[in-house]
Amino acid sequence: MIKVGIVAYGITPFTRDDQKIESVLLKSTKNLFEKNSEINRNDIDAVLVSTNNNSKYLAPILSEMAGIQPKITHSIESLCNSGTNSIVSAYSYIVSRLADMVLISGAERYDSPGEILEWDKSRGEFMHPIFWASIFTKSYKRKFSISDEQLALVSVKNHKQAKENPNALSHKTFTIHDVMNSKKLTDDLRLLDCSRPCTGSASILLASEQMAKKITDVPIWITGIGQKTTSAGFTKNTSFSSMESTKLAGQTALRMADHDIKDIDVAEVHDAFSVCEPMALESLGFSKSGTGTSMIKELYETNNFKINPRGGLIGSGHPLGATGIAQTIEITQQLQSNANNRQVENAKIGLIHNMSAAATSSTVLVLEK
Amino acid sequence: MIKVGIVAYGITPFTRDDQKIESVLLKSTKNLFEKNSEINRNDIDAVLVSTNNNSKYLAPILSEMAGIQPKITHSIESLCNSGTNSIVSAYSYIVSRLADMVLISGAERYDSPGEILEWDKSRGEFMHPIFWASIFTKSYKRKFSISDEQLALVSVKNHKQAKENPNALSHKTFTIHDVMNSKKLTDDLRLLDCSRPCTGSASILLASEQMAKKITDVPIWITGIGQKTTSAGFTKNTSFSSMESTKLAGQTALRMADHDIKDIDVAEVHDAFSVCEPMALESLGFSKSGTGTSMIKELYETNNFKINPRGGLIGSGHPLGATGIAQTIEITQQLQSNANNRQVENAKIGLIHNMSAAATSSTVLVLEK
Repeated sequence: MIKVGIVAYGITPFTRDDQKIESVLLKSTKNLFEKNSEINRNDIDAVLVSTNNNSKYLAPILSEMAGIQPKITHSIESLCNSGTNSIVSAYSYIVSRLADMVLISGAERYDSPGEILEWDKSRGEFMHPIFWASIFTKSYKRKFSISDEQLALVSVKNHKQAKENPNALSHKTFTIHDVMNSKKLTDDLRLLDCSRPCTGSASILLASEQMAKKITDVPIWITGIGQKTTSAGFTKNTSFSSMESTKLAGQTALRMADHDIKDIDVAEVHDAFSVCEPMALESLGFSKSGTGTSMIKELYETNNFKINPRGGLIGSGHPLGATGIAQTIEITQQLQSNANNRQVENAKIGLIHNMSAAATSSTVLVLEK
Repeated sequence: MIKVGIVAYGITPFTRDDQKIESVLLKSTKNLFEKNSEINRNDIDAVLVSTNNNSKYLAPILSEMAGIQPKITHSIESLCNSGTNSIVSAYSYIVSRLADMVLISGAERYDSPGEILEWDKSRGEFMHPIFWASIFTKSYKRKFSISDEQLALVSVKNHKQAKENPNALSHKTFTIHDVMNSKKLTDDLRLLDCSRPCTGSASILLASEQMAKKITDVPIWITGIGQKTTSAGFTKNTSFSSMESTKLAGQTALRMADHDIKDIDVAEVHDAFSVCEPMALESLGFSKSGTGTSMIKELYETNNFKINPRGGLIGSGHPLGATGIAQTIEITQQLQSNANNRQVENAKIGLIHNMSAAATSSTVLVLEK
């Protein structure tokens, strides 16, 4: 079977800027080409755009702006995990030999329509993601006797790590006291427990093994892929204190990569809200049920950046369609020993967890040197 | 390499009804399952939704409504050729072994946001597709000395053929005189020269060879795929009287299928406007430059349904995201000798041509028994 590698990437700072989506998209693509002048645009067979933006035909528009005339062009939307859905689609184009090299560009504006979940009437009038996050938080705290302070540490840790990420939305650090005293948004969630929508873009170039070798000496291989959709409405979840789709996607990805979760040196997990990080760690198997916050505490106290080195969604900001791609870029940089102050020592195998809408769907990727 | 077959399909009548997109989507999926009760929903690994609708997360929503818990779910948008983009993506998931069986559902409402081309400032204030179609028509007529009446015959032929398609938007027949006297919309185009936006849905199930044999005795194989994007704005086209992206996509698809255009027994081509049919026939190689209308005249006079048997976009209506899938269903029915009064005798090899925005991008598929 054809091996698929990440051969180049580009990214923009995540901001609250009011820019046209086409301009946001182009910026990370330009950044990618500027850093990799050896890439021949004629070798790019497909351009996939990952976004929740309502503008149409963005993949041909980006292609035209970037001077590419690919075979395949379209936009992909699956809310917050549009980015990894696009990466998996690109992977399949290459393995099936319809493409040798695929550009994936994800972008979002701070006012993305993907932030309102209009279809899920089981929420009643509560159509923002914070309402499922509140129920998750209440359920998780009750089931495992976890305190607000223990969850606040997720935000403290991830903001600390984001300070070392030049593209992160936030560069401030906070104490547990700061998080606890930030604006209370629901019974269980404060402002600093939440990732913030923002404007940003991230682009990545995938290539077949043969093509990859022409472009870089250090391709990062996609060795594991797992995806699962359990439902669309969060009340269909079998549990509010674990993530079933994440568990299944993680198992599939690790099986494909022929690895155990213990082999993973560094991971990006989808901390849309503070409670999501321990829940994801437990569902992926990094820690046992109810013990995710203990793992987070230990990592924080030992200054270990293993989980969410770029600062997670809470520290980096969450431009929906770009998030999964930005997560993948971070793991790529880690495996290339190119993550500066965020570098996890001797990172050889990495994992990405990207999910949508109360973990009703998840993608897990395993990357290796 | 794994062979990929079409093993089931479902479709709704195309109408001007005001229905929620989720309901429209579900209808053709239900129709597919009703006609194929042997399908086990647990065998469906991916659900791809093809649409220009602005609603988010439609693939998980459709999955939940249809009782499917797939691995892969997302929406795909590329304006009018979203449908065939989705089919090609599904094909690649199967060949790459990430999926064994993929459901593709396309749907649109009559008021689709894909009908306004907001990004193409080279049109000035003219943001509807009819303006590129007018320029194509003027250019084609001038270059090849073609009359309005010759182009009107496309509409006459396709309306005649649509009368035999129970799902078509129009069941009326028209004379050349009727077309010429229908409401004049621009200098060169009348109402009956145009396909009409509508509400409709079409679903198709693709499977690997091994899985296909469990479901049907007559799978239709996808043997050729070609796609090309030349630009996003129509003024970048190298010609207004031929379709460069169609020509390149057609050549690629025929090469992959190891066939010549002469081998094609039946074809669906993207007649968004009357001039598009002869232009597509010429760009695909069915007829020489400037002679497409002669071929159309001959087919009409001999009552030969070879081109656009279901009535094309002009006769059937054009629910953007569903169109490419409906075209593919028609060719599937033709090759299965299951097209009733529309049947082209002894059809063994078929072709689908689906394009977007003034042929700035095209997909061509070859199907075989």
